[in-house]
Amino acid sequence: MVKHIERLSSEGQLTETLRRRTAVSAAAGLVLGIGDDCAVFRPRGGEDLLFTTDMLIEDTHFRRSTHTAADVGWKALARGLSDIAAMGGEPRFCLVSLALAPWCDAAWVDGFFSGLLRLARRERTMLAGGDLSHAGKMACDIVVAGAVPRGTALRRGGARAGDAIYVSGTLGGSALGLAGGRGRAWKRHVRPEPRLALGRFLRERVRATAAMDLSDGLSLDLHRMCLESKLSAAIEAPPVFRGATLEQALDGGEDYELLFTASAATRVPAEFQGVPLTRIGTMRRGRPGTVTLEGEPLAAGGYDHLRIS
Amino acid sequence: MVKHIERLSSEGQLTETLRRRTAVSAAAGLVLGIGDDCAVFRPRGGEDLLFTTDMLIEDTHFRRSTHTAADVGWKALARGLSDIAAMGGEPRFCLVSLALAPWCDAAWVDGFFSGLLRLARRERTMLAGGDLSHAGKMACDIVVAGAVPRGTALRRGGARAGDAIYVSGTLGGSALGLAGGRGRAWKRHVRPEPRLALGRFLRERVRATAAMDLSDGLSLDLHRMCLESKLSAAIEAPPVFRGATLEQALDGGEDYELLFTASAATRVPAEFQGVPLTRIGTMRRGRPGTVTLEGEPLAAGGYDHLRIS
Repeated sequence: MVKHIERLSSEGQLTETLRRRTAVSAAAGLVLGIGDDCAVFRPRGGEDLLFTTDMLIEDTHFRRSTHTAADVGWKALARGLSDIAAMGGEPRFCLVSLALAPWCDAAWVDGFFSGLLRLARRERTMLAGGDLSHAGKMACDIVVAGAVPRGTALRRGGARAGDAIYVSGTLGGSALGLAGGRGRAWKRHVRPEPRLALGRFLRERVRATAAMDLSDGLSLDLHRMCLESKLSAAIEAPPVFRGATLEQALDGGEDYELLFTASAATRVPAEFQGVPLTRIGTMRRGRPGTVTLEGEPLAAGGYDHLRIS
Repeated sequence: MVKHIERLSSEGQLTETLRRRTAVSAAAGLVLGIGDDCAVFRPRGGEDLLFTTDMLIEDTHFRRSTHTAADVGWKALARGLSDIAAMGGEPRFCLVSLALAPWCDAAWVDGFFSGLLRLARRERTMLAGGDLSHAGKMACDIVVAGAVPRGTALRRGGARAGDAIYVSGTLGGSALGLAGGRGRAWKRHVRPEPRLALGRFLRERVRATAAMDLSDGLSLDLHRMCLESKLSAAIEAPPVFRGATLEQALDGGEDYELLFTASAATRVPAEFQGVPLTRIGTMRRGRPGTVTLEGEPLAAGGYDHLRIS
């Protein structure tokens, strides 16, 4: 059974602490937050709701020795927010399932929620509820709910032959940070920035034809977008994070930049709020899922959770 | 990294398999299911949405040696459906995050989804998406979304002094099953039945003043209901599952029966669809959270995930 957690003597106490730390707003649709069997959300008319879920597990996604509690909390939420950004959505609320390991003391749990709630407040995402359990290693799962005007969610499968392919920012920073463990690249790895404002801009202004976030690496994620859009893609080298290799930029995951397509006639600005938007290629007819880099076939080398490696 | 999974060579392949096995219905509100960054759900007017999330972890909630894959899949969903039942809701869709352990082969994953989807189909709950990962031990987290007419969700905090307290079914069966590992009690433990039809009946016909599901044991769950309702409770012994002890009925978790209150003037039938509804006591003014059993104080002895034991 679970080791005693200093100062966190019961589930009820943690629930009460979180309730006090969490601002819930009925005006923003949350009728009932933490503490009952379910959270209750009242949708607005004319909106579609978006739902994404992501697990973050000790020694799979982070290490206790290198990631602070606040890093883990931030990243857990950032990954879900990035999925909302990819569809052009506004985040509304999240639910957090947390399985605490024997080493998770009260200070760690406090730090975890500090990191998570800091990002949640900034992005106006209410913590609506969750689940508390224990396990040999710490694991958490975050559900994020967002919204878009009805019928406007950006999908992976909407690209058309001839559309231009873009990425935001520079790629490979997270992989470089993971390898080196320091500097701006490390910060990029542990505190990814979900591109929420950019996602809304792509939906409202650019009218992107397809979009997704780069969580598993460009080579694999573009392959997936091509499969969904039933197209192939021809690209040049993407913009590389300073110090990273081209391989890290192509196959390294967790950059959480956005990959999107727009019709060739669309004028896409060179940057949005300081983040470069770079055209890297063109969607083409051809065997669905095929990607070429400077004319040569590009293997989908990104991170697949079920591949041998 | 993850051990090779026979016949499940990639995330893409599992995603495709699940897409084929999953019936999604735009008419039921699911605009976009498995395979994109988010699932897209179109709410109906006039409804509140309910959200619950529950983790199920190897060696915390189940054992590989005693629970079949289908048991684990069934139970993962049943726990979330039970929370929807507790608020009087109709389930709509679920999302499943799955972290596979090295021992999880393709047959196990197939069995897990068979158990889950069997219950999902019966209860008209669409599998809308999820997340796939790996870990040292198998872990899954299920989000279930449900709906009620606006403003009608049954809560824990609505009981009033003088209200009668009821439980459905008999208690202690799951604890007995866990202890003995066989028979009807074991089935009760591994294949709990979410009381969805009863929950709707309590909302629509009985107009229950408060409700919750019995997941952590009557003594702890009634204590929680009393805290939320700012009342105390006086109860007699609840109906006990055949062969179980009174202690198992009071403190054993995972019965997934419903605990509810109704005004003393309400006529509550003795059973609903074959499940007994038994009055066990009365809500009273007094120190919030206090529960007495036959006049003696009852300690909240149910399952608390953070207590030493």
